Amino acid sequence: AKTLRIGMIAGDGIGRNVLPAAQRVLEAVPGIPKPSFIPLDAGFEHFQKTGTALPRETVDRLKSECTAAMFGAVSSPSHKVAGYSSPIVALRKEMDLYANVRPVKSVEGHDPRMVDMTIVRENTECLYVKQETMEETPAGRVARATRQISERASTRIGRMAFEIALAADQVKQQRSGAARAYGWTGKPTVTIVHKSNVLSVTDGLFREAVRAVASEYPNVEVNEQIVDSLVYRLFREPEQLSTLVCPNLYGDIVSDGAAALVGSLGLVPSVNVGDSFIMGEPVHGSAPDIADRVPSIANPLASIRSAALMLEFMGYVEPAAKIYDAVDNAIRQGQVTPDLGGKLSTDEVTEVVMKAL
Amino acid sequence: AKTLRIGMIAGDGIGRNVLPAAQRVLEAVPGIPKPSFIPLDAGFEHFQKTGTALPRETVDRLKSECTAAMFGAVSSPSHKVAGYSSPIVALRKEMDLYANVRPVKSVEGHDPRMVDMTIVRENTECLYVKQETMEETPAGRVARATRQISERASTRIGRMAFEIALAADQVKQQRSGAARAYGWTGKPTVTIVHKSNVLSVTDGLFREAVRAVASEYPNVEVNEQIVDSLVYRLFREPEQLSTLVCPNLYGDIVSDGAAALVGSLGLVPSVNVGDSFIMGEPVHGSAPDIADRVPSIANPLASIRSAALMLEFMGYVEPAAKIYDAVDNAIRQGQVTPDLGGKLSTDEVTEVVMKAL
Ligand SMILES: CC(C)[C@H](C(=O)O)[C@@H](O)C(=O)O
Ligand SMILES: CC(C)[C@H](C(=O)O)[C@@H](O)C(=O)O
Repeated sequence: AKTLRIGMIAGDGIGRNVLPAAQRVLEAVPGIPKPSFIPLDAGFEHFQKTGTALPRETVDRLKSECTAAMFGAVSSPSHKVAGYSSPIVALRKEMDLYANVRPVKSVEGHDPRMVDMTIVRENTECLYVKQETMEETPAGRVARATRQISERASTRIGRMAFEIALAADQVKQQRSGAARAYGWTGKPTVTIVHKSNVLSVTDGLFREAVRAVASEYPNVEVNEQIVDSLVYRLFREPEQLSTLVCPNLYGDIVSDGAAALVGSLGLVPSVNVGDSFIMGEPVHGSAPDIADRVPSIANPLASIRSAALMLEFMGYVEPAAKIYDAVDNAIRQGQVTPDLGGKLSTDEVTEVVMKAL
Repeated sequence: AKTLRIGMIAGDGIGRNVLPAAQRVLEAVPGIPKPSFIPLDAGFEHFQKTGTALPRETVDRLKSECTAAMFGAVSSPSHKVAGYSSPIVALRKEMDLYANVRPVKSVEGHDPRMVDMTIVRENTECLYVKQETMEETPAGRVARATRQISERASTRIGRMAFEIALAADQVKQQRSGAARAYGWTGKPTVTIVHKSNVLSVTDGLFREAVRAVASEYPNVEVNEQIVDSLVYRLFREPEQLSTLVCPNLYGDIVSDGAAALVGSLGLVPSVNVGDSFIMGEPVHGSAPDIADRVPSIANPLASIRSAALMLEFMGYVEPAAKIYDAVDNAIRQGQVTPDLGGKLSTDEVTEVVMKAL
């Protein structure tokens, strides 16, 4: 029988509060092999203790012992700290988790606006290659960063986006009439987000590579939109957006913006996806202001949904759907943490979800 | 007596429809020297006709004959067109218009939410230096762009932001109690928008340079926020944002997002500001879908407000305030174009504004 060995990288701040919630739900959900969990280190606090943000051991054990992983959150000092570099950015690259998939969906029967989009963010390059230089000139310092966009990375993220658009479409077709009532038109769409009116070479390549993949998916419509006007549209007519494919930094910004549409960053899950590894990760940060409260009031729903998304991408579609439904129920019933206007603690919300499984 | 010689660069699409509206309002507003207008060429259509998007003559005449300018809009083909490069980007650099100032304000007594922020966007560097390369490798093409952040440009945009925060504060203090009722706390604030958790060298320098300027402005509070979470906050609590200072591309994205908060991109003005030249420019694009309709239905208000902003930055504060009030009145009375739910044409809206001057 298959085994499920899940690396658990809690990281910083509320990462430590919400990852145990995901673990409990994974232990409770029926329909998957009994999972085991391997706690692993990473984060800014780990860096402060040891001088290393992402220990070699964490990467090695992920590769040799784990079938998948969950990542909590990481603190990002905004001042430069010598020797520190974000472990989540490093992990995505080290494990070649080239896609960051972020579904942003409102809850039917709860949210007034029907939002149902998925941001497919390239996860390894763009400005995240972190090649930066500093030059002293007579007119002062000049810093430069390289933004890299490759045909290879753009092609594979494009393919991922079309696959996701097709899969999302199948789910919608199976659903009740409600989705249709909200304007679903029947043809899945991928929107390429870029700024090739200014960055004609880099974003031009991104756009072209994704369009080249499109010919393999005749049943998916292809759109495109300049990133600034996409962010405008995100708030004017979010109902009309479905699958967005973005270079790394635009994806980062657009997905935080989209999270605002569904009430809280504390609700939005993601998975980091590679060809042979999946890592779930809530989109929110480490929220140091509420970390480690007793009892914890950190919202565990993004983390729980990320666990479901991880299962979904591993092929456990039914168990994932069970978790999504349980989370939606908790939201509909107002059984939620204070950030969503509820009164429950992290643990209590987790119980509510587990009971509904 | 001073003269006002205004270069009028209509550009593409609705630029041709809205710039005449700005001109009529400038001709009608009391309190400024009688302006003269110098039509100048630039744009994608001009490129298609002549092979040049920004004729040398336009830049030369702006420099030698004009005291200020208005720019309409430019079409941005998203596919690469050999030899074409955005004339507005070039113009900002050629004229060293290093700040793009974008006030996004709701209309008191009309909009349900009180938004009153100003985005101060660096206008000459970041990814807009447009240094891009393409390399052929065995694994496919790899494109690279340089993102440049200099101490000099960051310092001067920082200073501009603090000056604007102070000036905005003075205006607020003079206002009726209404602004206060909406949560104004009395201390002007500049929020530095960056992503130095990833771009520690480039955005680290931006952040540091703006903070270094802060010491010259003890009465202004300094905040900072990572760009992705700023976009989240933009939609969660826009009332709490006042003056934002951003590197070029973040400013581009954030200002389009902010425009969504006040109902339409067709309302948001900007000025491109240098040490010795000012160019007003509506934030919207060329909207080819509605360009050149007879009668025109392009919303002239962003353009008219941009003319006012241009005057304001030239020191004509009272005439500018008159125009702002006239525009606010038109909005409150629903005397607007279809994008805002009204029934008027471009000319009719312009008449309404002119009558109220
Ligand atoms: C913490 C930070 C490095 C990270 C990113 O920019 O990718 C975060 O914002 C995210 O979206 O996962
Ligand atoms: C047209 C385009 C080059 C421009 C920009 O990116 O600056 C526009 O989006 C703007 O905001 O003025």
